[in-house]
Amino acid sequence: MAFRSDIEIARDAKKKPIQQIGERLGIPSEHLLPYGHDKAKVSQEFIASLKDRPEGKLVLVTAINPTPAGEGKTTTTVGLGDGLNRIGKKAVICIREASLGPNFGMKGGAAGGGMSQVVPMEEMNLHFTGDFHAITSAHNLLAAMIDNHIYWGNTLGIDERRVTWRRVMDMNDRALRDIVVSLGGVSNGFPRQTGFDITVASEVMAILCLSNDLADLQERLGRIVVAYTRDKQPITCRDIKADGAMTVLLKDAMQPNLVQTLENNPAFVHGGPFANIAHGCNSVIATRTALKLGEYVVTEAGFGADLGAEKFFDIKCRKAGLKPSVAVIVATVRAMKMNGGVAKADLGAENVAAVQKGCPNLGRHISNVKGFGVPVVVAINHFHSDTEAEIQAVKDYVAGQGAEAILCRHWAMGGEGIEDLARKVVQLAEAGASHFAPLYPDDMPLFQKIETIARRIYHADAVIADKAIRDQLRVWEAAGYGNLPICMAKTQYSFSTDPNLRGAPTGHSVPVREVRLSAGAGFIVVICGEIMTMPGLPKVPSAEMIRLNDQGFVEGLF
Amino acid sequence: MAFRSDIEIARDAKKKPIQQIGERLGIPSEHLLPYGHDKAKVSQEFIASLKDRPEGKLVLVTAINPTPAGEGKTTTTVGLGDGLNRIGKKAVICIREASLGPNFGMKGGAAGGGMSQVVPMEEMNLHFTGDFHAITSAHNLLAAMIDNHIYWGNTLGIDERRVTWRRVMDMNDRALRDIVVSLGGVSNGFPRQTGFDITVASEVMAILCLSNDLADLQERLGRIVVAYTRDKQPITCRDIKADGAMTVLLKDAMQPNLVQTLENNPAFVHGGPFANIAHGCNSVIATRTALKLGEYVVTEAGFGADLGAEKFFDIKCRKAGLKPSVAVIVATVRAMKMNGGVAKADLGAENVAAVQKGCPNLGRHISNVKGFGVPVVVAINHFHSDTEAEIQAVKDYVAGQGAEAILCRHWAMGGEGIEDLARKVVQLAEAGASHFAPLYPDDMPLFQKIETIARRIYHADAVIADKAIRDQLRVWEAAGYGNLPICMAKTQYSFSTDPNLRGAPTGHSVPVREVRLSAGAGFIVVICGEIMTMPGLPKVPSAEMIRLNDQGFVEGLF
Repeated sequence: MAFRSDIEIARDAKKKPIQQIGERLGIPSEHLLPYGHDKAKVSQEFIASLKDRPEGKLVLVTAINPTPAGEGKTTTTVGLGDGLNRIGKKAVICIREASLGPNFGMKGGAAGGGMSQVVPMEEMNLHFTGDFHAITSAHNLLAAMIDNHIYWGNTLGIDERRVTWRRVMDMNDRALRDIVVSLGGVSNGFPRQTGFDITVASEVMAILCLSNDLADLQERLGRIVVAYTRDKQPITCRDIKADGAMTVLLKDAMQPNLVQTLENNPAFVHGGPFANIAHGCNSVIATRTALKLGEYVVTEAGFGADLGAEKFFDIKCRKAGLKPSVAVIVATVRAMKMNGGVAKADLGAENVAAVQKGCPNLGRHISNVKGFGVPVVVAINHFHSDTEAEIQAVKDYVAGQGAEAILCRHWAMGGEGIEDLARKVVQLAEAGASHFAPLYPDDMPLFQKIETIARRIYHADAVIADKAIRDQLRVWEAAGYGNLPICMAKTQYSFSTDPNLRGAPTGHSVPVREVRLSAGAGFIVVICGEIMTMPGLPKVPSAEMIRLNDQGFVEGLF
Repeated sequence: MAFRSDIEIARDAKKKPIQQIGERLGIPSEHLLPYGHDKAKVSQEFIASLKDRPEGKLVLVTAINPTPAGEGKTTTTVGLGDGLNRIGKKAVICIREASLGPNFGMKGGAAGGGMSQVVPMEEMNLHFTGDFHAITSAHNLLAAMIDNHIYWGNTLGIDERRVTWRRVMDMNDRALRDIVVSLGGVSNGFPRQTGFDITVASEVMAILCLSNDLADLQERLGRIVVAYTRDKQPITCRDIKADGAMTVLLKDAMQPNLVQTLENNPAFVHGGPFANIAHGCNSVIATRTALKLGEYVVTEAGFGADLGAEKFFDIKCRKAGLKPSVAVIVATVRAMKMNGGVAKADLGAENVAAVQKGCPNLGRHISNVKGFGVPVVVAINHFHSDTEAEIQAVKDYVAGQGAEAILCRHWAMGGEGIEDLARKVVQLAEAGASHFAPLYPDDMPLFQKIETIARRIYHADAVIADKAIRDQLRVWEAAGYGNLPICMAKTQYSFSTDPNLRGAPTGHSVPVREVRLSAGAGFIVVICGEIMTMPGLPKVPSAEMIRLNDQGFVEGLF
């Protein structure tokens, strides 16, 4: 068979009408709001009606630290969902929505790959059901209302130099990173310096993904700290009276989006917060809805397990009261080789020694995740150049860590290629071996929480933070924010803060550059290193090649 | 019966599933792409299949110059559509989409009023089907690609001071009117002054509304002039290679939106360009699709007939080859009184003399519209305080102008209250009396076109423009833009450029402040007076009151 690209496979998908996918989950058609024939939102009313139903089992798909070789976390999430359905379990997939802007820079992100994809792929990489546009509007309404308040007399006493709420756009536009607004004279307001972030970095995105319902959403939006007075008292979104209107703008975006896999299994694709300055998981409301409707819910977290799984457990699960039953850690032979020191160009040649040398990265993720009390299984996402000996080396290593590694061929075969993993997941889940607990208690002092993550997850010796940062944390503790969890923002490429330090480093330290309060989302962001919240376009952006072809299909996006 | 607000009436609407509305027009369900259960888009494929069908008759609803008393143009458009259906004609309504941003400033715009409304009202005033968000994205992608081109070496030689393409946002945000971007050092680009307009002011909006299909859309997008070199040579969107990706972002937005009236008649709500710096009509693709599907199409144009109808005829109809059969000019007794010098507070008292004194405003619109060769009928949109004598005064005046004025009670009664007007429209249309021709030929010099509009439509004595403006027009003529029509941007409140000059002024002159080339939309914008392209929020924005109530309904938006 000739090689087919992800987009070619996606276009050939035999999609079922979305109402049929909804029916399988028991969603009445009046509560499934279609967007075209292959996407739909689930009504708030129906979701509210599920309140007292029992919940299915939650499976987290996480991964080793990403390498340029790719690990296939979303592909495995989708494949495992298909595999579970194939072995007779009613499984629902929950993944994040894609951001539109970056697709016009580098080639766009697919929703899975090969035979393990969610469709319609083009639309999920463009406007989809408009959720991100709604978030952009809500975020920027608040921004406009802040400057409008200052313009009309500033009765709240906002210090224009201390407006922390920026604007957002779902576009890679470096020119907007650092701007001066309100030029042009009296009628345009008071000039001040500010900027735009990309929409996925908005606190509104994180809030939408962590809210239980519309009332909780409005409550959280109201808590956002947007500015400070001259004597450093916080001004909130509620002070600006923007929380009600923002909730109205977000009411449809709060409804989870239902689509399907290539094998016509249900997938919720909802929410997409940054995995560095936010928690990087799909929405609580989608995950909870899926748990009410399915026996198994397969979801993923951003980046590697050091960032993604830790935040999934310590932020999303802690706050939403979710109890994961099993965690799948995705690894590839190629990524093990890169961790073992092999360059990308040389990945095609067999190198068992390098695989063995790279495995400690995987080993540390296994022990870290086990530390949360969740049973672990490793998925080896098969690549055609993998050799038997290399695969065996990974299996042997994982066995030595007290876990099992299972070869998965879902990329090439779909759900059929991942039945072994599905059976293992069911076995672990039904054994009831999970005793999930977050890493640290709510009432631990903030700095100590940071140290706990750095030591127990990153295996660092120390956290380095200057007095201003420690003082800031104490100010927030005094102001009642001390019980919030920590949201670490560091490189995803290493356990350390040095992106080039692969494997399982020790003896390193974690320097904290900045801390930020996300009072609405409900976490303290701890920034270690440079975090870019507004990407730029490359020299030749993919937008230059993107176009509709003669058949009306999108070319150049994938 | 107790008084019910527009929103209360809209919420009580007995909506039919949108597929049923589509069926009545012969749209197969696979070609009607639902957005929820009460909105849908019509597929490009189906629209293309209609190519060789005959077209129905086109009815324009326009009005006198707007006064604070209101005239009810959209309400009459919707009512007339219902009325035509009631008397057995297959009629389709075509109106514009609402802009989201301004709804958070002043109370939001309904889609019609009373018993003559289009529903779902809330959604049409919020995100609707996402068309405006798509336009925002396409516009801002081009902006990002321009700055990105300069950043990566500027091989096109763009003069950073002469980038004319600004950014847009669908929000009232005065702080963004005048900004400096690309601050913060080398990695953020070259600092320059620019700003944001509101999305409806984007040339992309005007282009979308004037394009025949996706190929035409891409062609027009490519022609947009975005900047100039140091030696003043134009740089286009095609030079930046953004036209293909922008078309991809707009492919769904180019599909007309189908909704329904309170009486379950079909209405296309699609596109919404500014009525000053753009042409202010719904999309050509919606109007043409409606003409292929209905016997009658009722549409409206922005502001009074001096701006709206003139642009509808000279831009939209000229370029799209549309031939309107009848024009309805909406007037109210109250507006006639205001034109006759009565203050808003005194409108409740009978004042026949004031009505008579105000009628010349209406009279001039009648003769102007007749000048385009289109038969005219006047709709008197009834208000409960109107007296018999006042109504008769309007009727008598209009009869004296060689036309008929018909009292319409659609606001209170729906289609039943406007059957007389519907019958008159049918009579005029079927008599085939229309001999539509635009006001001026394509090959008239640009300045002469401006003078023609000023003299023949505004009844001004002269057009005043300094040498720089006349020179600019000549440069454009030399560059091949001389055949474009003119898009006048002036106050909507008067035939003159003085908003306080009501009635039918003569002896005035039209000062041209600025001219702008909209090469993609295909017109030259002539700005007379101050035109605001980014509104601000008022001291107490309606956003402060907007919220979801306990039943999940939106409060404060209307």
